[in-house]
Amino acid sequence: MSEPAAPRGQNRAPGGSVSATQQLPALDDRALAALRDVGREWEGSVPDRAVWERALPVDPQLTFTTDERVGRFLQIRTSGAEDAPELEVTRAATTPESRLGRAGALVRAVLIGPPLRSTAIAQERMRKLVALPVLSPDALSSVAYGPEAMLTILVLAGTAGLGLSLPISAAIVVLMLSIGLGYRQVIRAYPHGGGSYVVAKENLGPIWGLLAGAGLIVDYILTVAVSVASGVAAVTSAIPSLSSATVAIGLAVIAVLAVGNLRGVRDSAAAFGAPTYMFVLAIALIVIVGLVKSGEHGFPVMHPANLHATEAVTVLLVLRAFSSGATAMTGIEVISNAVPVFRPPEGDNARRTLTVMVALLISMFVGVVLLTHFYGTVPGGSETVLSKLAHATVGSGVLYGYVQVATALVLLVAANSAFNGFPRLLFFMACDGYAPRAFVRMGDRLAFTNGVAVLTIAAAIVYAGFGGNTISLIPLFAVGVFVAFTLSQTGMVVHWFRRRDKRWREAALTNLVGAVLSALVVLIAAFTKFLEGAWVVVVLVPLIVYVCLRIHRHYALARQALIPDPGRPHHRSIRAPRRSPVRADGDGRSEAADAPDEVTNFVIVPLAVLDLAALHALAYAASLSQPVLAVHVSPSEEEAERFNGYWSAWGSHLPLEVLVSPYRATVAPLANYIEALHRQRPDVTITVIVPEIIVRKPWQRILHNRMSARLRSALLAYPGIVITSVPFHLPA
Amino acid sequence: MSEPAAPRGQNRAPGGSVSATQQLPALDDRALAALRDVGREWEGSVPDRAVWERALPVDPQLTFTTDERVGRFLQIRTSGAEDAPELEVTRAATTPESRLGRAGALVRAVLIGPPLRSTAIAQERMRKLVALPVLSPDALSSVAYGPEAMLTILVLAGTAGLGLSLPISAAIVVLMLSIGLGYRQVIRAYPHGGGSYVVAKENLGPIWGLLAGAGLIVDYILTVAVSVASGVAAVTSAIPSLSSATVAIGLAVIAVLAVGNLRGVRDSAAAFGAPTYMFVLAIALIVIVGLVKSGEHGFPVMHPANLHATEAVTVLLVLRAFSSGATAMTGIEVISNAVPVFRPPEGDNARRTLTVMVALLISMFVGVVLLTHFYGTVPGGSETVLSKLAHATVGSGVLYGYVQVATALVLLVAANSAFNGFPRLLFFMACDGYAPRAFVRMGDRLAFTNGVAVLTIAAAIVYAGFGGNTISLIPLFAVGVFVAFTLSQTGMVVHWFRRRDKRWREAALTNLVGAVLSALVVLIAAFTKFLEGAWVVVVLVPLIVYVCLRIHRHYALARQALIPDPGRPHHRSIRAPRRSPVRADGDGRSEAADAPDEVTNFVIVPLAVLDLAALHALAYAASLSQPVLAVHVSPSEEEAERFNGYWSAWGSHLPLEVLVSPYRATVAPLANYIEALHRQRPDVTITVIVPEIIVRKPWQRILHNRMSARLRSALLAYPGIVITSVPFHLPA
Repeated sequence: MSEPAAPRGQNRAPGGSVSATQQLPALDDRALAALRDVGREWEGSVPDRAVWERALPVDPQLTFTTDERVGRFLQIRTSGAEDAPELEVTRAATTPESRLGRAGALVRAVLIGPPLRSTAIAQERMRKLVALPVLSPDALSSVAYGPEAMLTILVLAGTAGLGLSLPISAAIVVLMLSIGLGYRQVIRAYPHGGGSYVVAKENLGPIWGLLAGAGLIVDYILTVAVSVASGVAAVTSAIPSLSSATVAIGLAVIAVLAVGNLRGVRDSAAAFGAPTYMFVLAIALIVIVGLVKSGEHGFPVMHPANLHATEAVTVLLVLRAFSSGATAMTGIEVISNAVPVFRPPEGDNARRTLTVMVALLISMFVGVVLLTHFYGTVPGGSETVLSKLAHATVGSGVLYGYVQVATALVLLVAANSAFNGFPRLLFFMACDGYAPRAFVRMGDRLAFTNGVAVLTIAAAIVYAGFGGNTISLIPLFAVGVFVAFTLSQTGMVVHWFRRRDKRWREAALTNLVGAVLSALVVLIAAFTKFLEGAWVVVVLVPLIVYVCLRIHRHYALARQALIPDPGRPHHRSIRAPRRSPVRADGDGRSEAADAPDEVTNFVIVPLAVLDLAALHALAYAASLSQPVLAVHVSPSEEEAERFNGYWSAWGSHLPLEVLVSPYRATVAPLANYIEALHRQRPDVTITVIVPEIIVRKPWQRILHNRMSARLRSALLAYPGIVITSVPFHLPA
Repeated sequence: MSEPAAPRGQNRAPGGSVSATQQLPALDDRALAALRDVGREWEGSVPDRAVWERALPVDPQLTFTTDERVGRFLQIRTSGAEDAPELEVTRAATTPESRLGRAGALVRAVLIGPPLRSTAIAQERMRKLVALPVLSPDALSSVAYGPEAMLTILVLAGTAGLGLSLPISAAIVVLMLSIGLGYRQVIRAYPHGGGSYVVAKENLGPIWGLLAGAGLIVDYILTVAVSVASGVAAVTSAIPSLSSATVAIGLAVIAVLAVGNLRGVRDSAAAFGAPTYMFVLAIALIVIVGLVKSGEHGFPVMHPANLHATEAVTVLLVLRAFSSGATAMTGIEVISNAVPVFRPPEGDNARRTLTVMVALLISMFVGVVLLTHFYGTVPGGSETVLSKLAHATVGSGVLYGYVQVATALVLLVAANSAFNGFPRLLFFMACDGYAPRAFVRMGDRLAFTNGVAVLTIAAAIVYAGFGGNTISLIPLFAVGVFVAFTLSQTGMVVHWFRRRDKRWREAALTNLVGAVLSALVVLIAAFTKFLEGAWVVVVLVPLIVYVCLRIHRHYALARQALIPDPGRPHHRSIRAPRRSPVRADGDGRSEAADAPDEVTNFVIVPLAVLDLAALHALAYAASLSQPVLAVHVSPSEEEAERFNGYWSAWGSHLPLEVLVSPYRATVAPLANYIEALHRQRPDVTITVIVPEIIVRKPWQRILHNRMSARLRSALLAYPGIVITSVPFHLPA
């Protein structure tokens, strides 16, 4: 599966659509006009920019600085416009200053690698022979668990059940052919890459796009969990003593994949292509050896011993086996998402590669199923079906080891492909406002850090929750994949019907068949495996769609609220201040504001004690050239008197109001009092200046009351109140 | 045990030492003098207070307000001094304004009760007959598990082991007598209540006090866990079908105790006294009936059937049984901590009550052990020993039910006593600076909310971790208790030796015997049960002491750093601002500061986009009458140009600096840049004004980048940088 799972060397900017600069919304002409209106109101009301610039006590360009640190952090760009020169940040400046932060940055640099510049995003075209192994591990590796999943159901009905493996496989092959043909049409229509989310969104509407996206989100998580589980099973089949550590090994593998993808380095495609060829060779080896050996004896069908049929052969059983076996084709859509990575003519090359891949997939699938039929191989015990077949055909020597290693490696690469696809899907959804904007942000290694992190956590939870057991995960797997297939194919039907270019009828019919068959698999999988786990997906997918819609609604409202709009009266808060902002006059002896109408700001300093931190905050408050009121909340009358005494000792330089709080609460009464003052003069912006004690070590935080943080969260709920923290640093 | 575990109705202010006003440190004369020095520097530099007061745009007294909300929240106190009138907070003002906050306050009010005024702390003296049952449940209830814990060890050696129960019990009785006599001396010396922490601290030094305190902290947690486990066992003995829910029931009981103690209501002592008399009666009932029945047959000793001796009778086994049985005397020290609650003459009454309690404890302990001896009762199965004895003596009818109910109730009351003692111990330790100051704070119900919360969580973890099994918890129990006993008795020896008043030799000898015996029990328990769990306590107690010392060191340094000190040059930040703070002049046309020396403040506005939130922050920044610099961090050159375009459209009213960050990091480069500016002019206070988008619902927070919070935590590390959040409220 793996939606926009382009190859590693390539995945950062397919079709030029992934870019680090897309995260900031552009203003349209209307908003720009509104911005100009706002700006005009400032003219005449505040001094010229030149006045402001002369007032700056520092040189913002850092030109004349002799500070050796500055060179490490910033360099002047000559390319900046003259009126707004630019500084470029160096890599050193991305490192935090604190000791803990530096240690963290060091660990990151070792594990993840040093930061990369945005310009490091580049394109690289692939030949078909390179593209095939790079784009197909997700699909081909499914052969490692698909047939086994099918047989696990059939064996419940004993020998009679196993006899059905060939006809059911035939049906799956038909499905593979049909979906494969369908994706050939997707390549034709979306030469820049058409993920199910994009195809469904463009042709069927955003809701259907989200449904496909939600299916894919679930699907990517399960791809990681199932591929890792199956890969670990290949290892524990060969070394059974490791099987008790299945969960630990799998979690370690997921962690390694996460770190590798956070590094986001441009891996050589060849490194990722090799396991695919190894795996194809391994399957070819056991199938050919097996068929030759079997053919020497005239293809006798061995019946496995001791088969207890616990279920009868029913339609339900057949359908369950079918939907389990259909997981063998997950990943078939990958090539259609990655058309731009092919050399020109991209479409033709991609279609040919897809055809080869589907042919390989069908051959390997059929070969494995035939072998299990002739050798009477049944799932169970501590060995995978593939491992049993390898033992039966090539013995237990070097060749057996090769088969297991190739299987484990290809599954690792398949799991890795989800780590490319998932963050990119969330990137596209976030660009459309359906996912948190954090998924748009690229980390300093050009990887979508947040997407990788979310996938890692989700896959680890699913993997550990199911004990690393492939077969328990299969019921959840098919639904998500085939929901995406169905919507993508249906979207294509609509696409062709709208276009009606040459041969559109043929193409539409192909996609219609694909859509109907995929939809059938969704229904079969959802109904027959509902209680086995499919219900999780059936519940989760609509839930994800709902959450995406809520997110979208919030972003739309936020954008509307945040963008300047000429049709809406602006809140006074963005207009120019009514008092002159930069002044060099005044000797400190002038009278206080006699006309309160001129006052726009008002400062409140809440104090618990009169220590140096409090005095520091009072001095800062007084320096702002605004009216100041100190407020003390006392738990008792005596405490209030004590504070008054200290205040008098200091000289009572500023107005003080004492609140006695016999219920000992501090924050809520303060917030209520400040709000009461705010109601008296809603036109005045109140600045609450809170002394904040800063400790050296994080654990020391619990030793000081978090009044500042609590007051902040209580007061931020009120509009028109600004919170200022004046830090006071403790020496230790 | 239960260190300063005074009775419920009484525990808020024994000896007048617990008071809500102690949380704020007082300034000494030296600090006051320094405060006056600081204040004198302000004189002449800033206008008079009268000028400041005239400048206020609001009436801080809220006198002339017509706002109906104000009356709900605040009332004017007539008692306030004229120059600093006070407002008193009403209960309504302690309720948060937000919807979530109001809902939370409602839940709290229902569960915990409405807030109480500080003045609701009151004293109530108790008669001996009331004090006895109120102060003794902790000690007497130990009879429910002490003998059983001893027999559990002895039964390992079969009949030969059980035969030792009488001599070991005799040794325990000697211990009880000795420690009981020792605490009579504590009462004499500390008529205001002498907890082990206080006694050890005052006589042996702070480290020993902390050691006793750490022992008690562990001990309180275990008292809750063991008492609840034993109480639940009394219930499940009677109703065995409940035994599968042992952990759930116990956690529910702990939760109920926590809520009850958070309510902090003044419960009638009688309600807590009743279970004690019920339990004494229950034990008397089974002991008397049992002995009479046994006596009818000439006290034959029944030997339990099917006793498999798995260990030999060794010295080690005897010592293990002894230290397990010694848990029967936990709680013996409670009365000595609560002397002030007795009617005068307090000392005499307390000592007489202690004598009665020890007599009861010994009688009950001996009675139970004798019964198990005669009836051949051995621990094991799903029934407690007490339940087996009850079945054997009074059958399975109403009387049996009464015994079990009384046992469960008295254990519940015993667990509850730890909920009084633990927060008060932490209060004392926090007052001395050895525990986080948060433990000094009283909640709005006059309960030590934080102490109750910590005990609840710790006890729940221990209880659930040990599966609610009393016997598994016992090895951890004895060490903590007897560490506290040892240090308290040793402290008394030193006390008498220093005082040398009349009869000091006699008293010192009594305490010396108690100290030596307690120390023996500590050694025996720590060594013989090290691997069974005592190691946890052996590791934990020194760890707690270490943490307490680190906390104390931090507070000492913090106090030194925060308190004005005439012997130390004051940082300029607390001096009066150099520019006139309140001015009504200026027409907005004056020139900018030509002499940068006059500037004390400088404002930086970091911006990601130029939306209304940003414009709002810019307008606020400009209104502060200080030099302003806007800083934009762009992930790319193109983005920077786009921003420059918007800035020009707005009119470029303020100086702008653009940083291009090709590594896409935003916060670290900004912090580094701001620090570079700060280094240019370390004398200037930099105010960083961050636009902060405020969402309506908490989940929406993850949809917006937390630039403001991240910048805050990055910049708070630098001294001299002030952070201001200008909120912008989204409509939904």
